[in-house]
Amino acid sequence: MQALLTVAYDGTRYAGWQRQTNGLAVQQVIEDALAKLMGRAVVLRAASRTDAGVHALGQRAAFGADGLKVPLEKLPEVLNGLLPPDISVTAAEEAQDGFVPRFRAREKTYRYQIQNAPYPNPLIGRYSAWVRQSLDVDAMGEAAAHCIGRHDFKAFCAASRDVFEKSTVREVFSCGVEVREERAGSRLIAVTVTGGGFLYNMVRILAGTLVYAGLGKIPPPSVPEIIASKDRTRAGKTMPPNGLTLVEVVF
Amino acid sequence: MQALLTVAYDGTRYAGWQRQTNGLAVQQVIEDALAKLMGRAVVLRAASRTDAGVHALGQRAAFGADGLKVPLEKLPEVLNGLLPPDISVTAAEEAQDGFVPRFRAREKTYRYQIQNAPYPNPLIGRYSAWVRQSLDVDAMGEAAAHCIGRHDFKAFCAASRDVFEKSTVREVFSCGVEVREERAGSRLIAVTVTGGGFLYNMVRILAGTLVYAGLGKIPPPSVPEIIASKDRTRAGKTMPPNGLTLVEVVF
Repeated sequence: MQALLTVAYDGTRYAGWQRQTNGLAVQQVIEDALAKLMGRAVVLRAASRTDAGVHALGQRAAFGADGLKVPLEKLPEVLNGLLPPDISVTAAEEAQDGFVPRFRAREKTYRYQIQNAPYPNPLIGRYSAWVRQSLDVDAMGEAAAHCIGRHDFKAFCAASRDVFEKSTVREVFSCGVEVREERAGSRLIAVTVTGGGFLYNMVRILAGTLVYAGLGKIPPPSVPEIIASKDRTRAGKTMPPNGLTLVEVVF
Repeated sequence: MQALLTVAYDGTRYAGWQRQTNGLAVQQVIEDALAKLMGRAVVLRAASRTDAGVHALGQRAAFGADGLKVPLEKLPEVLNGLLPPDISVTAAEEAQDGFVPRFRAREKTYRYQIQNAPYPNPLIGRYSAWVRQSLDVDAMGEAAAHCIGRHDFKAFCAASRDVFEKSTVREVFSCGVEVREERAGSRLIAVTVTGGGFLYNMVRILAGTLVYAGLGKIPPPSVPEIIASKDRTRAGKTMPPNGLTLVEVVF
């Protein structure tokens, strides 16, 4: 039997999801908590390897749960008692043996938040990138619509992408821009994108391209041409990780 | 000439607004930045002495600005360059000499955020208190309405209140409860209260009383009687500081 967890985390102080030698990973912290609970080493397999500083509301991760003495419905509460406040398990369910979340994810939703204000608001800064110049949200939305569909997204892929990935073709099911909050000249703009999968840094480059559209640096109608060019230098800059949140994974 | 700043801060790592010996205060960090800029010691006078861990969106603070070489409209940007990311100056304007923000504040608005969810969401946890049991928001709203008006709020005042305060009578102009966000069984509930001034811990005790109303521990119609009793033990518990934000000060 495998257990499949839903996990939320504030990625600020972590070197990303994946266990590594260069810093504390979210995976490691949860695996250590599970090891305490199970009395043996545990390996977690996640749906998405979020980067350093990226947050999650609905990360999913599975582990072999044979010998688990806690009923699954009590597992979130018990695990949260062993986890720091910036990581929270919000659900646990059963999964079949051999279920590998990364390969079974049919749909992932990410949100990129941009604070558009003359001065940064520290109560939003952990979870958004700050853009000082006023953004044209309509132009961003128009550019976002051009990102929908099955395309070769090589132009939206970091050069240092995983060399084992064979194809840079991905399908974006939906991509939209909304103003989530507005207060005294300050707006919180959210880019929400759902797709079958994403290339390395793709959402952050997509968000950067929409920001360029909002600044007038990229005309929205030229987005299809930028994608078709497969030329990374024609897209917007890679936005910082703290604005990005993995919202949901659908299997 | 005095300069009057509008300041936002994430209070998590601070021992409150007021300079003190037991930890780093927001006042101290901004005064140190101003001292660098002015080449002399600067004393800031704030509208509200927020407690340790309490946040602000619209704190106001004044200082004697004679000799300031930066134009006022450039001051926020210059100061933010000298401040850590969890403190941000969002406006600067001129104020008369002798203007003491604390005595001139006619109206202060605070917001207390409560995360009502089976498991805590770490992306909200810095700025809200977590309540696991489901809250009756209508009952909270009914209890809130009973807090409006000019009352002796001794029942909502921490025992360790400032002994120099002569009266515990305060006027609450408005007090309301709203669901700010709702997602997958998780709600972010906000208590917003505006008044002429507040006693020590008053908003956190008021929020705790509304939470008790939401849990069914205090019937909303008994709130006037609890206030009239002037008995601290009859009100709800003092909610933790991280849920509280000073939103606005009106002079």
